[in-house]
Amino acid sequence: MAAPVILVLDAAPSPRLGRLTGQARIVYTDERSLAERLPEADVLLVWDFTSDAVRAAWPDDGPRPRWVHTASAGVDRLLCPGLAASHGTVVTNARGVFELPLAEYVAGLVLAFAKDLPLTLELQRQRLWRHRETRQLAGSRAVVVGAGPIGREIMRLLHGLGVQVALVGRTARRTIHGPEDLDRLAAGADWVICAAPLTESTRAMFDARFFGLLQPYARFINVGRGPVVVEDDLAEALRRRWIAGAALDVYQEEPLSPDSPLWTTPGLLVSPHMSGDTAGWRDRLGEQFVSMYEQWASGLTLPNVVDIQRGYVPSPDIPL
Amino acid sequence: MAAPVILVLDAAPSPRLGRLTGQARIVYTDERSLAERLPEADVLLVWDFTSDAVRAAWPDDGPRPRWVHTASAGVDRLLCPGLAASHGTVVTNARGVFELPLAEYVAGLVLAFAKDLPLTLELQRQRLWRHRETRQLAGSRAVVVGAGPIGREIMRLLHGLGVQVALVGRTARRTIHGPEDLDRLAAGADWVICAAPLTESTRAMFDARFFGLLQPYARFINVGRGPVVVEDDLAEALRRRWIAGAALDVYQEEPLSPDSPLWTTPGLLVSPHMSGDTAGWRDRLGEQFVSMYEQWASGLTLPNVVDIQRGYVPSPDIPL
Repeated sequence: MAAPVILVLDAAPSPRLGRLTGQARIVYTDERSLAERLPEADVLLVWDFTSDAVRAAWPDDGPRPRWVHTASAGVDRLLCPGLAASHGTVVTNARGVFELPLAEYVAGLVLAFAKDLPLTLELQRQRLWRHRETRQLAGSRAVVVGAGPIGREIMRLLHGLGVQVALVGRTARRTIHGPEDLDRLAAGADWVICAAPLTESTRAMFDARFFGLLQPYARFINVGRGPVVVEDDLAEALRRRWIAGAALDVYQEEPLSPDSPLWTTPGLLVSPHMSGDTAGWRDRLGEQFVSMYEQWASGLTLPNVVDIQRGYVPSPDIPL
Repeated sequence: MAAPVILVLDAAPSPRLGRLTGQARIVYTDERSLAERLPEADVLLVWDFTSDAVRAAWPDDGPRPRWVHTASAGVDRLLCPGLAASHGTVVTNARGVFELPLAEYVAGLVLAFAKDLPLTLELQRQRLWRHRETRQLAGSRAVVVGAGPIGREIMRLLHGLGVQVALVGRTARRTIHGPEDLDRLAAGADWVICAAPLTESTRAMFDARFFGLLQPYARFINVGRGPVVVEDDLAEALRRRWIAGAALDVYQEEPLSPDSPLWTTPGLLVSPHMSGDTAGWRDRLGEQFVSMYEQWASGLTLPNVVDIQRGYVPSPDIPL
């Protein structure tokens, strides 16, 4: 029997796949050749997770990969009706790789805001000694939107810093709040943190109406996906001082254009979609895929299977 | 019997002392009139903790305050041979007020460095989208120099973030390392954090020899007292890239002069001695003094008593 074909959507060789030598045939493709090569592939590895080429290239019928893995947490750039209708194909994501880095990044942003670090750096540039009082983080209140493993890890780290955290998921269960509680919780929060996947129910959920609910001392952080935020509404809320500050790591369009008004919106901290990427992350993504491939090739059940209707990997309903 | 006289070294009224109305007579003084007024005072409250006027003004004999309280954690600006020889006088500090704010500030600095936040802010000013890989904080190693309540609180918060922390005190005891372990621990550390008091044994302890021991990826943070660091040596270590970065909140001279080369030393984050000062800190200092005054006036033993020979309040030898 011929070795299975792994088609890798990426221009360059991906790390850590060498361990599969002899077990599989690895074929690299770019976006242009993707449609042509998909029918011959057993497995599609979406290594270039910024691409949405799979949507257009996915074959409506005929032979197609039985397994699609994306080297990312979010699957929004991948899912499409054709893939949803391909009942013989399982889709998996990189759950496990990004949780801790993202949670540390969020903790860093929250502390940087509480301790007024951006202004300290600006005053240092101006050689100005200006003592200010900062905020105590312990005892403050956070709402984390997104109750998957990333949101839960954010909650764990913030708990360790003494923050009172409420987790809001798609449905209320045990200690997780449902969307019906979000407005009330957000209205009393010091920190609103989005770690939600992009789905039809989260798209544009953070808009002028929402920002209008928040306290003037509140700060909003998005490490989920850009389109869950109406960027113009956030910028306007900051300009009108409806809220005290915000940090975005993800955007409607990435990379952010040099002309974007977001770069200079007052109180807004702009970072280039790097919150989950700690040194060695690509190695870890490669190792994760190899380990999952070995399970798949042995006929074992794959972990991290995406619920294509919901648009994310459902989390077990475990006590937090 | 006349009400005791509390002499307050500060130009302006201090908050929260109103509760002592009828219990004590509160007299405000500035540095110039301090010597003249000290003999008539029962209690000296050093509210302006940046002043070292007590040293020159303390009477060598005759009547003098039986209790001196400073609204700070460090007592280095206060202690002098005359005070040490005044066996009838007890000296106390503001232990309890600054621990959590300082520990949060240090956690914020550590995360800001791990997540490369200063460069992110600089790139935002230039409207540059430049993705970088950051460092994972969990699993990294910190040495905290200073095993008092501030060092212990820093250890607690960093533990919660998954950092391996070694605490170095004046003498080895239980889980606290003695000074003889410092070089070895620092040589393997990602973070070296100074939360030590200024005493004759800590003055200038962080010098070229010490910085030469550190790893090129190490970062040094000082929230103790400025003179424990040889500033020129630190600046040189940063310029030579012996270490990856540093943050100072305290200095040999405060405020830092606009001409100081520290403002522009590469990799150095300069903040204006604000790490312990969260909103309401002056109120908390006032409330603490009032509460301690009530104990003193009732004849109860005062907490937070400074060991004048050692130069700080010794911590109980409790398991950590």
